[in-house]
Amino acid sequence: MSQKNAFYAQSGGVTSVINASACGVIETCRRHGDRIGNVLAGRNGIIGALTEELIDTSKESDADIAALRYTPSGAFGSCRFKLKSLEENRREYERLIEIFRAHDIGYFFYNGGGDSADTCFKVSQLSETMGFPVQAIHVPKTVDNDLPITDNCPGFGSVAKYIAVSALEASFDVASMAKTSTKVFILEVMGRHAGWIAAAGGLIEDYGIPVLVLFPEIDFDHDRFIAAVEHKVQTHGYCTVVVSEGARNADGSFLAEQGTRDAFGHAQLGGVAPVVAEMVKQALGYKFHWAVADYLQRAARHLASATDVEQAYALGRAGVEMALAGENAIMPTVERVSSDPYQWQIGRAALADVANVEKIMPVEFISEDGFGITAKCREYLYPLIRGEDYPDYDDNGLPRYVVLKNELVKKKLAAFEI
Amino acid sequence: MSQKNAFYAQSGGVTSVINASACGVIETCRRHGDRIGNVLAGRNGIIGALTEELIDTSKESDADIAALRYTPSGAFGSCRFKLKSLEENRREYERLIEIFRAHDIGYFFYNGGGDSADTCFKVSQLSETMGFPVQAIHVPKTVDNDLPITDNCPGFGSVAKYIAVSALEASFDVASMAKTSTKVFILEVMGRHAGWIAAAGGLIEDYGIPVLVLFPEIDFDHDRFIAAVEHKVQTHGYCTVVVSEGARNADGSFLAEQGTRDAFGHAQLGGVAPVVAEMVKQALGYKFHWAVADYLQRAARHLASATDVEQAYALGRAGVEMALAGENAIMPTVERVSSDPYQWQIGRAALADVANVEKIMPVEFISEDGFGITAKCREYLYPLIRGEDYPDYDDNGLPRYVVLKNELVKKKLAAFEI
Repeated sequence: MSQKNAFYAQSGGVTSVINASACGVIETCRRHGDRIGNVLAGRNGIIGALTEELIDTSKESDADIAALRYTPSGAFGSCRFKLKSLEENRREYERLIEIFRAHDIGYFFYNGGGDSADTCFKVSQLSETMGFPVQAIHVPKTVDNDLPITDNCPGFGSVAKYIAVSALEASFDVASMAKTSTKVFILEVMGRHAGWIAAAGGLIEDYGIPVLVLFPEIDFDHDRFIAAVEHKVQTHGYCTVVVSEGARNADGSFLAEQGTRDAFGHAQLGGVAPVVAEMVKQALGYKFHWAVADYLQRAARHLASATDVEQAYALGRAGVEMALAGENAIMPTVERVSSDPYQWQIGRAALADVANVEKIMPVEFISEDGFGITAKCREYLYPLIRGEDYPDYDDNGLPRYVVLKNELVKKKLAAFEI
Repeated sequence: MSQKNAFYAQSGGVTSVINASACGVIETCRRHGDRIGNVLAGRNGIIGALTEELIDTSKESDADIAALRYTPSGAFGSCRFKLKSLEENRREYERLIEIFRAHDIGYFFYNGGGDSADTCFKVSQLSETMGFPVQAIHVPKTVDNDLPITDNCPGFGSVAKYIAVSALEASFDVASMAKTSTKVFILEVMGRHAGWIAAAGGLIEDYGIPVLVLFPEIDFDHDRFIAAVEHKVQTHGYCTVVVSEGARNADGSFLAEQGTRDAFGHAQLGGVAPVVAEMVKQALGYKFHWAVADYLQRAARHLASATDVEQAYALGRAGVEMALAGENAIMPTVERVSSDPYQWQIGRAALADVANVEKIMPVEFISEDGFGITAKCREYLYPLIRGEDYPDYDDNGLPRYVVLKNELVKKKLAAFEI
């Protein structure tokens, strides 16, 4: 059989385990050297393909590639860039084909979320639309957990674990202090459209923590929220609030957009946590603290979920195996076989069914009062945050995260303006 | 020799390892049952002594006491409450003596920071001032690392490790995204008066990260800061900023007090990170993200420093051993013998020299440009964040933190109003 090179790229917001998928892709390609030559990685995602900035992964040692499994972020650089449709921007597709032809690329592995699945789908159609043979496989990744068909997305389980553990730890702290000091702690988490990550904060109710979750899916009701906080504080002495950055009012506006202005009259930027904190203070006078986890949550490889790391790797490997089996326009998925005991297997989704479809959190995952999660949600979440998978640490006390050489292959084509 | 009971209490802001000190105190007391009877713990710190809310630690199993070593927060409750001077409030001291007498308490172990050392010192003088024999030992604890004489304070090393690891991870994330998205990441850390915690963020420069630290010790200079951010971004493509909550202007005002107002004209609350982010955006237009670690940093037992945990336990044990040796008005300390290899031993400080003295960060720990740390600072910090000491996790994927029974002993005295 003929040997072709592979292209791999990371797309969109990175996670603590997207490099584990990269590791799965590259190690599996290396094991099939008869069929797959070099893996060329796009520097900063698909942009690297368009600009011919192709990282020569053959220059990376086996040990460094293996270390990707333990390294957060996107080792080759990622980007926020969506290919337009063929009708709108034929020029970019022609450029891709030139690049693929010049570097003998027959396999296209794209590691990203919903927008990226759309890009990958478009590339998968190049054989048909442009007459160039390439197999395009999408490897799922997103902390937002919003890709359809797959039971969950690599990246989400580790964020969920980080949020659950952090909310638990901070709640223990507040419980200690509540007698004379902080009574309400507010933790802001990611999730502009869906409350998957916020839901993970709801798990700590199982550990006796008085917690309220504010989901983007539930219209915020100021008076009901304040009453709920007051009730928790009166009953338990304190209250933890986990609020999604996407929490919104009944009119659809984000809570974080409160029309706050700085001294110069500029709109004050984000942070729904301080907004909620101020509400609590105004209404109830309780002393509070707030935290905004932001990138810490999605970069926290030091606290990754073992389930998540394993699946991230397995989906990368499965993507390559599917390519070798001749498939195109496909995404390997996680199929849940059972929750207790947790069993899963690799499934598959046609990219046409994945691109631009957003999976929202099922209504039956949110408790009736809108401030917590249901047993069904717990059953879904726990297996995803199970297990620890620690990186090695160096003698200084910091994790051994790998920085690759990232040497580019020699350019063969003229420059291209994006 | 006669047997006396011991009183133990936690004071001030809690940490991820103060319970390790509690574990050291209680386990050591249990090993000396001939001399020390029961350990009675103050519910919510010294307040529990005044109100006779005394937790009977003999009701806690050896396993649960051992589990304190791995549990963040203050297991018996803490408080922010400082005893006034004997002249100002003789009534409280008389009450303490009543309580000690009623419960046969001869040892007083107080686990806290600078203010608590002052309270402990006052109690240590009760023999002299009020004619009641009690030995008072202060066990140091504070994430602020600002107690004098001791080389470092339990609680600090773990926060420093958390901040260094988190800043490193988030920087990897930003490096991946910088081509088309976030170029500046701002992490706000604790430290209102001293930049010890912020300094830990400076360690990541050793890992190739372009990082700027904003210390409370250095007057903030807007133009120099903006120029430094621009230089980092132009050189490295991105920049990480670690800002102390106590960062301040030349006139002494906090950066976080920018006179920002919400839609109702209320002063907008804290968060120096968003203030710095807004400055960067206004001046340079870079896309940014910001995080506020707040309680997450001091509660993060999941990422504690092994050095810190070991010292927290050892200082609790040493406190009891000093009491058994007949000492009073003393605090066990960490004495650094050498940095490379790191060696330390238990030392001692007279409480009169500790109470109300704040140790500031040495000037020679801050780099000449004011935005980083020196080799001396690195040499000081690394040993304190070295080693990992993970808690066990349960089958759900969450850490096994212990919640004690906290049963109170029967009250013997009339109620007391604080």
